[in-house]
Amino acid sequence: MSSVKLDPPKSLDMNIGEAMFTQRAIRKLKPDPVSDEDLKTVLDAASKAPNSGNEQIGRFLVIRDRDKIRAFGKLYHEAWWAKRAAHGWTKPEDLPETARHRVPMQLADEMKDAPVIILAIATVPKRANSVFPAAQNLMLAARALGIGSVLTTLHPQVTERVHHMFNIPAEAEIHCCIPLGYPRGRFGTTQRQPTSETAYFDGWGSPPPWK
Amino acid sequence: MSSVKLDPPKSLDMNIGEAMFTQRAIRKLKPDPVSDEDLKTVLDAASKAPNSGNEQIGRFLVIRDRDKIRAFGKLYHEAWWAKRAAHGWTKPEDLPETARHRVPMQLADEMKDAPVIILAIATVPKRANSVFPAAQNLMLAARALGIGSVLTTLHPQVTERVHHMFNIPAEAEIHCCIPLGYPRGRFGTTQRQPTSETAYFDGWGSPPPWK
Repeated sequence: MSSVKLDPPKSLDMNIGEAMFTQRAIRKLKPDPVSDEDLKTVLDAASKAPNSGNEQIGRFLVIRDRDKIRAFGKLYHEAWWAKRAAHGWTKPEDLPETARHRVPMQLADEMKDAPVIILAIATVPKRANSVFPAAQNLMLAARALGIGSVLTTLHPQVTERVHHMFNIPAEAEIHCCIPLGYPRGRFGTTQRQPTSETAYFDGWGSPPPWK
Repeated sequence: MSSVKLDPPKSLDMNIGEAMFTQRAIRKLKPDPVSDEDLKTVLDAASKAPNSGNEQIGRFLVIRDRDKIRAFGKLYHEAWWAKRAAHGWTKPEDLPETARHRVPMQLADEMKDAPVIILAIATVPKRANSVFPAAQNLMLAARALGIGSVLTTLHPQVTERVHHMFNIPAEAEIHCCIPLGYPRGRFGTTQRQPTSETAYFDGWGSPPPWK
């Protein structure tokens, strides 16, 4: 396997703090295309993430062909509703009237129109630790370029068909599905529990030395 | 659960490209302490990562008490060798004479002396997707502050004892173990396969439109 060293792309010049603290999930995408240059930049960034033993078992499958995006979009829509079926929700009227449910539902409808969709895959099963850090690098780099993304997952009900659609080997595991595009809204801050509640020092439940 | 908005910490002012492209695994750590302020910054950065449904099931257990680090270091050492036993390697002489094996072995010896160790945990099982993006934010933020880290995992042989040592609830899952400290070496570029080989367009194995 070949190997390269890379200099940081000049376009990734946003402060890391700004990129991380304004990485809102972007689910409403403009139809405008994402350039090859920007795709290479975000994929290069992904390749730089830590991975177990530097075995580099992560693969990124970029879907850009309009017909394939439309076909995949149907499966994503089915997968999204398959997850809701566990709550007894089978149609839009069943969902709570909150943005938390409505906006992801809209993404399920619109995935077929995403400019680009990226599947993050490991060639070996049960190796999430070698894929999600790369997926996060990819999304942070996208943010730095003004490109929105959101981390989504599929559902076992559609896995086999997605594998078949893209000739993904049976043993390879799809960990997440990331639509990319320019936002119809804005990037911005997110609401989170303070680390005074989610970080513990020296024992479970023991608070850190700050409020 | 309470919720806060946070501005980006002023100390996270490195270009995101530089941070990502020089995030080498740092396994040799100086004994110098990491300040509370820097720990808060990297944990705040972790909290900003995407997580499933914004349910925020990630928890970070920071180990800084010297006795607890020493006790945990013994379990980490045991876990490291438990993984090698699968290859029939039970003592240092059994390992291949390469940095790829020797440097991690040295970390297994030295974990007991790490200035800080952070366990990344989910309160719900099988939710790696809500923990590893945060772990990567944490490590990138550390890099931006000049603090080294490496993503390591434990081994089922020690899991129960680690849970007991820190009163971690039985249902919570420890996804990774990240020692933090100032590097005895330097940050720098990493060797990776080019994305012309690890990214595919519109079908498995189909190369991207670049070399």
